[in-house]
Amino acid sequence: MVEKRRKKTAEEHAAGVLAGDRASLAQAITLIESRSAKHWDQAQQVVEEVLPYTGKARRLGFSGVPGAGKSTLIEAFGMMLCEAGYRVAVLAVDPSSTTNRGSILGDKTRMERLSKHPNAFIRPSPSGGTAGGVAKKSRETMFLCEAAGFDVIIVETVGVGQGETLVRSMVDYFLLLVLTGGGDELQGMKKGIMEIADDLYINKADGINKQPALNARAEFNRMLHFLQPSTPGWTTEAHTVSALYHDGLKAMWERIDTFFSKVQESGRLTERRRHQMSDWMKAMVQEELERTFYQNPGVQSAWPAFEASVISGKTAPARAVQQLLQQFWEDK
Amino acid sequence: MVEKRRKKTAEEHAAGVLAGDRASLAQAITLIESRSAKHWDQAQQVVEEVLPYTGKARRLGFSGVPGAGKSTLIEAFGMMLCEAGYRVAVLAVDPSSTTNRGSILGDKTRMERLSKHPNAFIRPSPSGGTAGGVAKKSRETMFLCEAAGFDVIIVETVGVGQGETLVRSMVDYFLLLVLTGGGDELQGMKKGIMEIADDLYINKADGINKQPALNARAEFNRMLHFLQPSTPGWTTEAHTVSALYHDGLKAMWERIDTFFSKVQESGRLTERRRHQMSDWMKAMVQEELERTFYQNPGVQSAWPAFEASVISGKTAPARAVQQLLQQFWEDK
Repeated sequence: MVEKRRKKTAEEHAAGVLAGDRASLAQAITLIESRSAKHWDQAQQVVEEVLPYTGKARRLGFSGVPGAGKSTLIEAFGMMLCEAGYRVAVLAVDPSSTTNRGSILGDKTRMERLSKHPNAFIRPSPSGGTAGGVAKKSRETMFLCEAAGFDVIIVETVGVGQGETLVRSMVDYFLLLVLTGGGDELQGMKKGIMEIADDLYINKADGINKQPALNARAEFNRMLHFLQPSTPGWTTEAHTVSALYHDGLKAMWERIDTFFSKVQESGRLTERRRHQMSDWMKAMVQEELERTFYQNPGVQSAWPAFEASVISGKTAPARAVQQLLQQFWEDK
Repeated sequence: MVEKRRKKTAEEHAAGVLAGDRASLAQAITLIESRSAKHWDQAQQVVEEVLPYTGKARRLGFSGVPGAGKSTLIEAFGMMLCEAGYRVAVLAVDPSSTTNRGSILGDKTRMERLSKHPNAFIRPSPSGGTAGGVAKKSRETMFLCEAAGFDVIIVETVGVGQGETLVRSMVDYFLLLVLTGGGDELQGMKKGIMEIADDLYINKADGINKQPALNARAEFNRMLHFLQPSTPGWTTEAHTVSALYHDGLKAMWERIDTFFSKVQESGRLTERRRHQMSDWMKAMVQEELERTFYQNPGVQSAWPAFEASVISGKTAPARAVQQLLQQFWEDK
């Protein structure tokens, strides 16, 4: 069996994915996530086989600080969609987790009911890898899920590090989950995070927390009024939701529905996806150029001395950089 | 005379700058700003001669949308400092101006009184060049001004393009000038701009505009409460000022004074400047790597077809990038 699996061709992988077979999908994702150089070419072949069948899903990003109730919300929201006949894939992007420590979705039991639903597919965050690497894999994983026939892709990210920016750059709609418990939890929001959201949801708006949540919603809407919306032509709004009591989930889906009607009609959706593809290529170029430069042994050994010389005022920064680059190009 | 100027050595340039001679300073800046390859080496020598004499000035960034009254404010503020015996240099960073069109400070008469004060030095934005290029020159120009004995460097940027990010990355303290006239002007603030400011000043807080400005201040302070401060350990605040009636300028300087006491004592100032130097080197590396890649004729001719192939779903993005890079490295 193990032997047979190893010998599966790219076409077979792709066929399994396109048939919507869950085990094949999981296997293809593992191939994509492999950091072994010998898997790379086959993985790219699989991507190429499935690429023409992608693009039909709604790509949603869900973000929020730990404790905001992302898992509970995604489970409840995902269950509602699955019960309505949608096929839902949940992926995690967690650039902060270089080991399993701090990884979100490291454990499927976190969304136990959803993970067992026949219409759902949950893929935990790949552990290890750089931020860029993880993002690359997540996009390709998203394509595989789309090709496997999932209608809604929820890309989850924890509210730390570069996760949100990465997720924003791969989804159509970005939802930020926030909390309130009197006002203080709202402090210290991450720089720029409100401005990449298409909607803000204040979770745990139930019981004695309901009124504070409504107050927070008003406050957030006042703030949003001053900021540029993340999607031109769409007004980012703050709403309340209770994932625990399933209160506001339907309205959330209706709002997402309205969003897609709007951006499809205006052509913004197609435009955003084209830009994302082009930006992704450029990001990979940048990542690879910098990786090659900074992993160059000559650069690695020379950099600290140059930097020290610059900081102590002996070498002009532009000259230090020019010399490092000159050495690098000669070395290539 | 012209012949003699052409033959000035790097040491002579540096000596003139270090003597605080205004004409020498202007000449050295022109050398730095030169895009001619033959000036580059000498310019870097001048930077290296003066680098050990830099670091003593307060580096302030002033930003705000056109119409916010930056010129009037800087002139009034600069005059106040010059009268108090400080030497003040005003530089402009304007990455949006590839020609003179839209250039800020293109004309010294914009700050007529200040430009004539013996303690002041005003340098307009260099026209032409890429955003990165302009930023590079501006840092070096800032060093020259410091070496020439200026105590306060005001780096002005217009509130468009990447200007603020560039200026934030080279100054110690960043001031954002905003306007109010009832509330609507506050809308659509640039993404992330409030979060890089060390203080917000609502200008034109005079006459019938005074009360709306005070209301806006309260509103901004409410919003700032939710955001992470730009400088750890410092609380960004909103204040009102009237550049026209010189109301609030003294308080502005006192607040900047407090800022510097704090960051000097906590070591944040030294730390920030070290990081800025290191980040600048990395930014130059990135800029140069990408410039070399995208200006490579092979890359230029191959890119459009690869991009089209990716967007139409024929080539996997990662493979397209890998092939472009492979071609590039072979070409080098």
